[in-house]
Amino acid sequence: MAGNTFGRILQLTTFGESHGKAIGGVLDGFPSGILIDFELVDRELKRRRPGQSKWVSSRHEADEVEFLSGIYQGRSLGTPIAFMIRNKDQNPADYHHLENVYRPSHADFTYQMKYGFRDHRGGGRASARETIARVVAGALAKQILSTEKIAVTAYVNRIGSVVVEKSYQKLNLSDTEKSPLRCPDAQRASAMEEAISLAAAQGETLGGEITCVITGVPVGLGEPVFDKLHADLAKAVMSINAVKGFEIGSGFKSTSMTGSQHNDLFYSDKKEVHTRSNFSGGIQGGISNGEDIYFRVAFKPVATLMKPQHSIDKEGHEAVIIGKGRHDVTVVPRAVPIVEAMAALVLADHWLLSRGRRING
Amino acid sequence: MAGNTFGRILQLTTFGESHGKAIGGVLDGFPSGILIDFELVDRELKRRRPGQSKWVSSRHEADEVEFLSGIYQGRSLGTPIAFMIRNKDQNPADYHHLENVYRPSHADFTYQMKYGFRDHRGGGRASARETIARVVAGALAKQILSTEKIAVTAYVNRIGSVVVEKSYQKLNLSDTEKSPLRCPDAQRASAMEEAISLAAAQGETLGGEITCVITGVPVGLGEPVFDKLHADLAKAVMSINAVKGFEIGSGFKSTSMTGSQHNDLFYSDKKEVHTRSNFSGGIQGGISNGEDIYFRVAFKPVATLMKPQHSIDKEGHEAVIIGKGRHDVTVVPRAVPIVEAMAALVLADHWLLSRGRRING
Amino acid sequence: MAGNTFGRILQLTTFGESHGKAIGGVLDGFPSGILIDFELVDRELKRRRPGQSKWVSSRHEADEVEFLSGIYQGRSLGTPIAFMIRNKDQNPADYHHLENVYRPSHADFTYQMKYGFRDHRGGGRASARETIARVVAGALAKQILSTEKIAVTAYVNRIGSVVVEKSYQKLNLSDTEKSPLRCPDAQRASAMEEAISLAAAQGETLGGEITCVITGVPVGLGEPVFDKLHADLAKAVMSINAVKGFEIGSGFKSTSMTGSQHNDLFYSDKKEVHTRSNFSGGIQGGISNGEDIYFRVAFKPVATLMKPQHSIDKEGHEAVIIGKGRHDVTVVPRAVPIVEAMAALVLADHWLLSRGRRING
Amino acid sequence: MAGNTFGRILQLTTFGESHGKAIGGVLDGFPSGILIDFELVDRELKRRRPGQSKWVSSRHEADEVEFLSGIYQGRSLGTPIAFMIRNKDQNPADYHHLENVYRPSHADFTYQMKYGFRDHRGGGRASARETIARVVAGALAKQILSTEKIAVTAYVNRIGSVVVEKSYQKLNLSDTEKSPLRCPDAQRASAMEEAISLAAAQGETLGGEITCVITGVPVGLGEPVFDKLHADLAKAVMSINAVKGFEIGSGFKSTSMTGSQHNDLFYSDKKEVHTRSNFSGGIQGGISNGEDIYFRVAFKPVATLMKPQHSIDKEGHEAVIIGKGRHDVTVVPRAVPIVEAMAALVLADHWLLSRGRRING
Repeated sequence: MAGNTFGRILQLTTFGESHGKAIGGVLDGFPSGILIDFELVDRELKRRRPGQSKWVSSRHEADEVEFLSGIYQGRSLGTPIAFMIRNKDQNPADYHHLENVYRPSHADFTYQMKYGFRDHRGGGRASARETIARVVAGALAKQILSTEKIAVTAYVNRIGSVVVEKSYQKLNLSDTEKSPLRCPDAQRASAMEEAISLAAAQGETLGGEITCVITGVPVGLGEPVFDKLHADLAKAVMSINAVKGFEIGSGFKSTSMTGSQHNDLFYSDKKEVHTRSNFSGGIQGGISNGEDIYFRVAFKPVATLMKPQHSIDKEGHEAVIIGKGRHDVTVVPRAVPIVEAMAALVLADHWLLSRGRRING
Repeated sequence: MAGNTFGRILQLTTFGESHGKAIGGVLDGFPSGILIDFELVDRELKRRRPGQSKWVSSRHEADEVEFLSGIYQGRSLGTPIAFMIRNKDQNPADYHHLENVYRPSHADFTYQMKYGFRDHRGGGRASARETIARVVAGALAKQILSTEKIAVTAYVNRIGSVVVEKSYQKLNLSDTEKSPLRCPDAQRASAMEEAISLAAAQGETLGGEITCVITGVPVGLGEPVFDKLHADLAKAVMSINAVKGFEIGSGFKSTSMTGSQHNDLFYSDKKEVHTRSNFSGGIQGGISNGEDIYFRVAFKPVATLMKPQHSIDKEGHEAVIIGKGRHDVTVVPRAVPIVEAMAALVLADHWLLSRGRRING
Repeated sequence: MAGNTFGRILQLTTFGESHGKAIGGVLDGFPSGILIDFELVDRELKRRRPGQSKWVSSRHEADEVEFLSGIYQGRSLGTPIAFMIRNKDQNPADYHHLENVYRPSHADFTYQMKYGFRDHRGGGRASARETIARVVAGALAKQILSTEKIAVTAYVNRIGSVVVEKSYQKLNLSDTEKSPLRCPDAQRASAMEEAISLAAAQGETLGGEITCVITGVPVGLGEPVFDKLHADLAKAVMSINAVKGFEIGSGFKSTSMTGSQHNDLFYSDKKEVHTRSNFSGGIQGGISNGEDIYFRVAFKPVATLMKPQHSIDKEGHEAVIIGKGRHDVTVVPRAVPIVEAMAALVLADHWLLSRGRRING
Repeated sequence: MAGNTFGRILQLTTFGESHGKAIGGVLDGFPSGILIDFELVDRELKRRRPGQSKWVSSRHEADEVEFLSGIYQGRSLGTPIAFMIRNKDQNPADYHHLENVYRPSHADFTYQMKYGFRDHRGGGRASARETIARVVAGALAKQILSTEKIAVTAYVNRIGSVVVEKSYQKLNLSDTEKSPLRCPDAQRASAMEEAISLAAAQGETLGGEITCVITGVPVGLGEPVFDKLHADLAKAVMSINAVKGFEIGSGFKSTSMTGSQHNDLFYSDKKEVHTRSNFSGGIQGGISNGEDIYFRVAFKPVATLMKPQHSIDKEGHEAVIIGKGRHDVTVVPRAVPIVEAMAALVLADHWLLSRGRRING
């Protein structure tokens, strides 16, 4: 209700400001008896970490997660799993110049107005550092999903104007992690690198897109009419910093197709029902139909620039702002595990929910 | 939790199958003492109604809403407002041929699999007729918003391949309702009509886009980190039948802009803070910043075609399906009040919620 | 959130004022495929109905329930089950004298102050007539429970000063419905009748207690630490009009027992674990342990008296109030099905919830 | 939904096992700009702490709370306030003998059956140590309430068979904290001490009752029909370990009163409406009426005894259990701040909620 809790049966509550003591969360409703794969958690956190390449921010975040509850002898107890990551490397003096100004296209102004008071250091609660808690919880949710062979995989399909034209079916998604930009199309990845280098040289930043694919989803997840599976996915990813758009299956392209081009025809194969095309994106009427679920997410360019911008301060006086230190030219590659995490949380929640909705089987 | 309730402080629960006894809803949390404008409710319902033009379905739906509770002497009591619309014009025999088949890109298959049993008549609960309840509730929500001068207006900006290129600022939105297609750009509206006529002649259907603009929003609505205002808007509209995509502000176009192109610079005018551009779409960090909120929604083409399609029946045998009676070539114009309704519900809920979050003022 | 929705997976939303158009509800999350026993619904409603004996109010309420959705061909669809009961026998003139006065120990004053406006006729939303919707939903919830052999049975164990001393184990609960007062102890029932006759002669009213017993509950229902099974039962029954107290198992009597008197010792019988006593009332640590769940509920005396009472009107002037028509001397016998209904809703919700919490089995 | 979150606008999520790394919580929805009184938090924790008197358990718990987020420069940010208390003094070896047995009237058996696996050390999540998080959150909630002059005060009114006969109005509640047993009636407190000494000598334990009084409550808190203020209070306190009963106002005693004895007559005094008696306990129709709210809570005797008890182990074999170390003879005095905390959370939540429900004022 107060905005920091997500999910129903599997319920994540997060907390933490960028330069407060810690970032963390409580994951409630996690089933008991699951042997926790802590390495997976670390691996996912590492995927999200800054400083992975020459273009991204150099803040050294070890991001060591400490689990505080809900796990005993390596297994989940069925009680809330609390975890936190201590914030380090914080030097308040680095932020004095931002205390009274509103950075353009950040949340400085809206937080100040909504709460009348804010922690200006590194964006406070509005910092993308908040997503660490999502990634930890998502890594746990993936462990629920893997008991059902449901897999969530995302990759970068656009940086700035450089787009991967191939559909996900024509890509080898196992190549994603080999690429520093998490783009499985090596040729486009290299063009993306150039675009980033160019932007960096100009003190500029870039946005992009992420495609996420979910395989192995059983038929029947999703709760119409409001909690349709794709509606929940939309909310989940739209709540990630810098996201401006979401489309499922054919998405915006569907608007220029005709009905007969777009309809996914059913056929029966060895007693399983499938569709010949999958413009629906694996969801019909808000309920998974057993095909792959795939969606695309738009990220705007990073708001912090390495060149001067005009803005105002709290008193309404003009101010000039310029990013200090090193900042990401683009956050899209680092957002891949975040998108996966949110998708995993939605899928795991709906899967658990679907168990409670059925009386037989 | 079970999928048919939406909102927190202002909470809508809907019910009803297309060919059951009634469609309706319960709107709880509606503030007391508001003089209800019943004509507005009727007007909104009429906007949604089929049969408004030569292309749309001719099912005669009087859609007379009956209010069952929560209103006394024309004013809201602060108790739940229940309402219903009796279903008429239902002839079960018309649907016998659909009892055992799965129409392509409808919810027949997924409902059958999820619930093991379904009301096949007219799509049952999955019918777009369900949105009647949303429109009634949205019309009530608009009456909360109007106490604050918040206005929600949507229009059609694409049918098939015909797109309105002008931004909403360059259009006269008061022209929207003069157009049978709810497109305020008369020239494009006429091209849309041609596209629809052509599609109709071919037994085809079309999709399109709706743009929604919300003006007069005070600074401070939205509850980060999960219940960001645009995340809730995304869920709300993605839960409407046939919606495949959502974008706020610059949306997907932001991905090819640079940071300095995209950032909205603040300035101070008569003690009010504004931004020179509004790529953010009126929301920063998940909280309204006082600028117009605008978003765009993608609708896929209608799934029911007036020409034969291959499909299967419940036993997996092949079947050929063809639409009977008259069906919409496109639902986009009729979806305009539905999009507005969902947006109004989100805004009213967040506005009421923001009152509970503040201790002073 | 707004107060008229109860439950999580099985979620009831109710609506209706006493003298508005209708009383009703929407039960969402009801599993699909259950053949609805409509006669059970009618039977439960009849148990709640006024006019069952010489002492109770004579308002003629046919209380015919109409189901509006969620059921097709006699079976539940898994979609929301909406139902309503039209209000009849309403003559607004009967209530003119109450329009501006606050009846003692009714909700007139608090509703007026909270909402600034109220429907004074028959108590409006605060009328016990609201519980009709609970009884309908409870009758449906019982049908979920019966698939698991869980049974909910309540009876009157006190009217005024007349108490049933025997514990429920020593009573034949199948005798309950044979007694007009729903007291299975014939000797005490007869003393209760005398007490009621005496109170009636004096224009007085009486309160009492109801004991509720739930058998067949599997081990494992309840969600610590806040949603303990007995905490949810407490809230459910405390939300019924006129209830002033709740105790589970040994209840208030436990306070004067020692630990060794009160502890329920475990033993193993044919591989099943049981306890030799059941002061815990079938719940330990908030989770059902497989023993009978039993609790007791206190009802205050009816507030409407057949003799004059001093009060004030909206302007603060003194007023004298006297009940018109015929009113219940006590509502406790009629509250038996209401208590059962609320208990059934809680148990069914927790049972469905427990299915979503477990990954294996 | 998963049981460890409480409240709506002010929402507490707790975590932690007795002998895990930490106990803690996240309090979301706390209004911004409140100067936090950390000493009050410490004082409340100290009131709850074991080892306060010769009879209570000697486990040394420093219970130092660390705030992790949501507070900056001593003020609340409006973002989630996370806090934790590290567990100390834990020696797993002390609990080996309990790993496979089910202690009578504890949650060992039900946790084992529900989750298939448990942390047996000190009761794990079912330990009363969990209530530390409630006390911290309650101390914060009190700081919201004090902005409105709402005060929550509780005291012990029964230990075993020793009862305080005087009503709370006749007691000087400011004496409560002077008494090691938190009983403001010095004469009865001394009888309670004797009863406890006697029980201790016999290896026995005792239960008791707590009365809680809430003053300064504005008219209008509570959300009928399900979220009545006293229904939410009932759930809140019934969720505390060892609670078996709850009564508001006249409670169970109301059942033997007549209507004219029980009705609270209104009168008008200096334009304020009051009632001459207060059997309603400050709540009518589920909504606060401006009078004092008071309720009573029953606690069963402590289940851990210092003498042998028969039980069984996981395989169903007989086992003898005897408490090791030192344990509380009674927890009732220490439960006083816990009851207050839960009441404060309910009141603060309803107060914030009432702000969101009103459109004017």
